[in-house]
Amino acid sequence: MPFRHVAIIGLGLLGGSIGLAVQQHLPGVRTSGFDLDPATRARARERGLAALVPETAAEAVAGADLVIFCVPVGAMSAAAASVAGALAPDALVSDVGSSKQTVVRELTQALPGIDVIPAHPVAGTEHSGPDAGFAALFRKRWCIITPPAEASIAKLDSLSRFWEAIGATVEIMTPEHHDLVLAVTSHLPHLIAYTIVGTASDLEEVTRSEVIKYSAGGFRDFTRIAASDPTMWRDVFLSNRDAVLEMLQRFTEDLTELQKAIRKGDGEMLFDQFTRTRAIRRSIIAEGQDDARPDFGRGDHQSDG
Amino acid sequence: MPFRHVAIIGLGLLGGSIGLAVQQHLPGVRTSGFDLDPATRARARERGLAALVPETAAEAVAGADLVIFCVPVGAMSAAAASVAGALAPDALVSDVGSSKQTVVRELTQALPGIDVIPAHPVAGTEHSGPDAGFAALFRKRWCIITPPAEASIAKLDSLSRFWEAIGATVEIMTPEHHDLVLAVTSHLPHLIAYTIVGTASDLEEVTRSEVIKYSAGGFRDFTRIAASDPTMWRDVFLSNRDAVLEMLQRFTEDLTELQKAIRKGDGEMLFDQFTRTRAIRRSIIAEGQDDARPDFGRGDHQSDG
Repeated sequence: MPFRHVAIIGLGLLGGSIGLAVQQHLPGVRTSGFDLDPATRARARERGLAALVPETAAEAVAGADLVIFCVPVGAMSAAAASVAGALAPDALVSDVGSSKQTVVRELTQALPGIDVIPAHPVAGTEHSGPDAGFAALFRKRWCIITPPAEASIAKLDSLSRFWEAIGATVEIMTPEHHDLVLAVTSHLPHLIAYTIVGTASDLEEVTRSEVIKYSAGGFRDFTRIAASDPTMWRDVFLSNRDAVLEMLQRFTEDLTELQKAIRKGDGEMLFDQFTRTRAIRRSIIAEGQDDARPDFGRGDHQSDG
Repeated sequence: MPFRHVAIIGLGLLGGSIGLAVQQHLPGVRTSGFDLDPATRARARERGLAALVPETAAEAVAGADLVIFCVPVGAMSAAAASVAGALAPDALVSDVGSSKQTVVRELTQALPGIDVIPAHPVAGTEHSGPDAGFAALFRKRWCIITPPAEASIAKLDSLSRFWEAIGATVEIMTPEHHDLVLAVTSHLPHLIAYTIVGTASDLEEVTRSEVIKYSAGGFRDFTRIAASDPTMWRDVFLSNRDAVLEMLQRFTEDLTELQKAIRKGDGEMLFDQFTRTRAIRRSIIAEGQDDARPDFGRGDHQSDG
């Protein structure tokens, strides 16, 4: 293993899962962690998210050869600045943020002379905080690494091997392309889910209790991702603004077309649109990115209709 | 049990599940079924979706005291007309359609002198056809019954007891209110899911393979309901047009507000919107309408981030 000591800054769902995964898959590697919230640090010690959870970020990164920032994208700069003086000069700095162009810029600016190679494991659940993490989070998931042009091949290779060691499959792409891909596969879906859950809460003619009772008709699928961490997602939309607005524009155009078809009673157009969407579902299941069981195997919890 | 013989017209996910549920929970009740598609009839006989699956709808309804139409809303009229002459004069006619004002009108017009009490079990999965049904589909799910003003209390009570006997909890409301409630809890979510999956398939900058690979970022949750039966959903949008367009209008206004907040970089507004959506998720889980496990207990299939 190319790293002897991994430091994790931010001990929520992602940071905690990395700590647990390293201790499970790489028992020889030292782990230390820090979180700005004292309650999170205390809980992290109880759960053993990292072997060492000191009272300052500087102590946590001391001697680490890999430092991973697992904080909301908007907090990267401050988190990096708080450890700048304490980093080993040959340490590799990375992160797990959902938008990458902003992160590359902010981390390299905050840490002059330090190697920075951002990464984004496309994994998570709707839960957050120090109790949400688990060692298997990255298994069978993709980790996208977005190296800046000046990054060293050797350190890129080390970071790739690290992610593979804790269960992920690594893909390399530019920060620009990452931000475009995630805008459609992750950011737009979250924005839409947050919106419809908000719309449903504001209705006068339909009570909130009715929305909840009959949510098995499809609505509840949106509530899961709309329960994700608000701070993290606020920062994602602010930091990947252009790509999100671009994808939102296309979505709105397509929605307007369907709206027009419904208004005109154009059943043929609706049928054609509704038919082409099944193939993608089949591929997602074939590639192990979702559960083939009806309703994800929710058991009693079937939906739709 | 108030019914001795239940006839099911349409042997897909819903019709097949009713047939299996009746045979499991009401062994004394006769079941017969029909489907326009010969292949579906053959498969229905193999799976035993109904005790008797004759070659005509008229034979299927002969002697039945409860006839349930489980066909797409747009096919209700024709299905009703095809059995009009063969119905027992005291038979109760019902259905499982996702929109109710149109169905009440069409069934009563097609079956003069016959008692019609429409119903809608809010249950299903993304799968369809004669292989999709299972006896437990209605367990812990709601069945909304929408009796016309002239319906007899006795028959309404019989139909309620029938649905309770196969596992559902019954709620009574007007067809108008049903269509408004389902527009937001089911129809709008499906329309949005179909739209975003279509949008993602049409991108040039992001390949379909990338959309599939990174779908765990949130996108894949939309693909499940976007895999639902196209004919059924085309008919839902055509038959519940006004309520769907009304809900779509409100959704679009809310989405435009969030778009504006992203453009202006208004993090406070985004944070506030993203915070209010968690309570609904908690209530849906508390009321047993979804699975509390992270990611619905998808096992390896965590998502988001």
